[in-house]
Amino acid sequence: MPFVRLACGLAAGLLVLPAIAAGALDDAELAEARALRERALADDTAYELVRSLTTEAGPRSAGSPGDVRAVAWAVERLRALGFEKVRAEPVTVPRWVRGEAHAEIVSPWPQTLAVAALGGSVATPTGGLEAAVVPFTKVEDLEAQPRERVAGRIVFFTHRMERSRDGHGYGTAVEARGRGAAAAAKLGAVAMVMRSSGTSSARTPHTGAQQVADGIPPIPALALSNPDADLLEQQLASGREVRLRLSNTSRWEGEAQSANVIGEIRGRGLAEEIVLLGAHLDSWDLGTGAHDDGAGVAIVTAAAKLVGEAKQPPKRTIRVVLYANEEFGLSGAKAYAAAHSGAVDRHVLGLESDGGAFRPYGLAARVGPDRLALVRAMQSVVEPLGIGYFGTEASGGADLGPLRERGMPVMDILTDSEPYFDLHHTADDTFDKVDPDLLRRNVAAFAAIAYLAAEAEVGFGRLPVKEATPVASQPGK
Amino acid sequence: MPFVRLACGLAAGLLVLPAIAAGALDDAELAEARALRERALADDTAYELVRSLTTEAGPRSAGSPGDVRAVAWAVERLRALGFEKVRAEPVTVPRWVRGEAHAEIVSPWPQTLAVAALGGSVATPTGGLEAAVVPFTKVEDLEAQPRERVAGRIVFFTHRMERSRDGHGYGTAVEARGRGAAAAAKLGAVAMVMRSSGTSSARTPHTGAQQVADGIPPIPALALSNPDADLLEQQLASGREVRLRLSNTSRWEGEAQSANVIGEIRGRGLAEEIVLLGAHLDSWDLGTGAHDDGAGVAIVTAAAKLVGEAKQPPKRTIRVVLYANEEFGLSGAKAYAAAHSGAVDRHVLGLESDGGAFRPYGLAARVGPDRLALVRAMQSVVEPLGIGYFGTEASGGADLGPLRERGMPVMDILTDSEPYFDLHHTADDTFDKVDPDLLRRNVAAFAAIAYLAAEAEVGFGRLPVKEATPVASQPGK
Repeated sequence: MPFVRLACGLAAGLLVLPAIAAGALDDAELAEARALRERALADDTAYELVRSLTTEAGPRSAGSPGDVRAVAWAVERLRALGFEKVRAEPVTVPRWVRGEAHAEIVSPWPQTLAVAALGGSVATPTGGLEAAVVPFTKVEDLEAQPRERVAGRIVFFTHRMERSRDGHGYGTAVEARGRGAAAAAKLGAVAMVMRSSGTSSARTPHTGAQQVADGIPPIPALALSNPDADLLEQQLASGREVRLRLSNTSRWEGEAQSANVIGEIRGRGLAEEIVLLGAHLDSWDLGTGAHDDGAGVAIVTAAAKLVGEAKQPPKRTIRVVLYANEEFGLSGAKAYAAAHSGAVDRHVLGLESDGGAFRPYGLAARVGPDRLALVRAMQSVVEPLGIGYFGTEASGGADLGPLRERGMPVMDILTDSEPYFDLHHTADDTFDKVDPDLLRRNVAAFAAIAYLAAEAEVGFGRLPVKEATPVASQPGK
Repeated sequence: MPFVRLACGLAAGLLVLPAIAAGALDDAELAEARALRERALADDTAYELVRSLTTEAGPRSAGSPGDVRAVAWAVERLRALGFEKVRAEPVTVPRWVRGEAHAEIVSPWPQTLAVAALGGSVATPTGGLEAAVVPFTKVEDLEAQPRERVAGRIVFFTHRMERSRDGHGYGTAVEARGRGAAAAAKLGAVAMVMRSSGTSSARTPHTGAQQVADGIPPIPALALSNPDADLLEQQLASGREVRLRLSNTSRWEGEAQSANVIGEIRGRGLAEEIVLLGAHLDSWDLGTGAHDDGAGVAIVTAAAKLVGEAKQPPKRTIRVVLYANEEFGLSGAKAYAAAHSGAVDRHVLGLESDGGAFRPYGLAARVGPDRLALVRAMQSVVEPLGIGYFGTEASGGADLGPLRERGMPVMDILTDSEPYFDLHHTADDTFDKVDPDLLRRNVAAFAAIAYLAAEAEVGFGRLPVKEATPVASQPGK
């Protein structure tokens, strides 16, 4: 039992905090962090970064022309902002090309549906396919069916994602995206359509990665926007057979080259120790990846730059890592872990921004059990931003998984997931949705926390190696 | 000066109201209207009508298969609901077919744009066209330019629609849609793109009719969603030449047959006098026309049905007219006026529902000057629904224009236009956006007002024939 939950220990914690925190952070350091937080609230570096990334690179799925532009953009921007050791570490990524998807109800009442192929979907036969629809709420409902109820049909998963600040509905909603098509194929379905794993009421379907299935020839897998899923359900509610015609021209184009783009604010004294600030440079292809994860790229970059402008740099090095291909297989995260396998122990703490630039409300920290007082001292600095302490169940974000599993402590800045899942992985994830004030608040939180982590007298301990980690609530996946 | 503004005469009006109202409506009639209002608030006839229309007919632009289904649906539903004299009066409509539109920024930073052809747009040459973009805020800014600044280029209108409860921003925003392409063509532009005439932040562009230009070969005309217009503006802000590639395959297919669908709740005593409740049966093709104007169809139908279920029917006949092709030339409105030209004087009052099923907040009445006390008595019955008195500048809605110009008094139930212009003429105008409670409130208002208009001892006078009427704020156009 490596971690102690603070749970109801709030009052006790408050009483003993100052003494324990004083052991790791002195008053001057806490004052500098507060000053940094205020400077961040008046700084629009991050906003300009999201603007230029979404304008000049745009959609940047792994291996696409936009991805290539994004890597060049990131190298150029990190250099221009004064980062040191700026480099692009090569990452090989899979290249999937969307093509065109169409869906229409043929009967009983013909209508066109707004649809998007899921990442990795295969194409339909040329000319499309037509079949009757059989609906199921969830994958497990499908799996309980005999083959004859499914074979030759188009499976339709109807589960609607629940809206919540912490995004917990995503884990359930995304299950059909991950393994729905494979489960349907196993029972002989000719295609899978699903209600989008998102909460938007716009006709902009949600895309995202599917899991790889073993030994079953894949079938086309498409997502319907929520209004289109509603319409299909309305027609099914008539009791008549509902037939769909689908066409999709997605294809695989082997592998391509991308890169993790890295830059540093070098420390003094403990410069070999690293506080890692992560985000992912790639995006899905439907929108311009403004919140997912242009905002994260901008937040960690602007935060590190601000820390570098402090009266003196902190003791440890702050390393910004802009990961390649988070969306479709975590290629960059794996490549970084492999390339830096000899230096994992020098990564004293990792934070990723991958939940969009929405209202930050919490700090969670998965650190060594004797470091919680330090965490509470750090959280007190971001409390004026509306960020409360939210316990030890931090994920660190998808890109930090490989290092976390090798012992790196992680923290999360939790942000409001309600608006996030209206946009996430849809065409609507665009720059106009970024609120400059909320973006600054995120930068302020990351800047203050990163500075304190890099400056604290002690580190954050280590996590047990290969610890099982929660993934369901990681929206970036 | 045919109309007297009440303006600040509220207190005086309240003092004299009971006496004047008593001349036209007695206490039993007012009580019956209030009971009708309450029954409407517990009735979901309208919700079921919108559901079935959007599910079974779906998009129903003039002359399309959906339009044909909608006419059959309406005849069947009016009969099933107990209307009398149900018939489909033939209307010839123009048939424009959307085809496929694509737009992409070629340089400086290639990106795909979400785009929709405006109604009536011509196609691009096969293979598309490519040209540099020249932006203007409004049509008048373009018109002040020398030809050499425009010729050979793609004109881009950037004006952003203002959000407001009364929708007044639409009049300005829609100007580029109406005459922007013609003005650009006159100066030699090869195509026109515009920021959508709507307030949505989704990537669902707004379509709608253009005005016919005289003697200038038309050019393709496309609308960009607001986020896409933002992106194009961002690229233009770099100061570099921005080049667009456009393709569009819209085409005209001559004329087709549609119909005005009509049904009546027959009056007693004054059955030859008509209170007309209008809505339009057609919709644009991108969404399923849930608010525009499925909601209107449902509101006037359900309201008339409820009036027909009163203890005794009112003195006058309530005629529901579900107009053909409001969206693209008011074919049904013109056909109705022509077919009933001998009976215009028997139309004592007209109301149209064409602003969606959003929160009703006002009643405006363009009636004879000596009928305002009657109007105030009627308004007092819908006051508990949140509906205040909003003066004499009623438009009556687009479909009622031809009768209004021939003297028919009109009233408007004003509804909140803020959410309306997020959906209007876009793919997002779908059934899920209809709030059953707000829909019922609209039905309650129409039912109470229609009942009182049909029951009042006197009519509403006549308007001056061929009076100039405001059209800018008519959202249905």
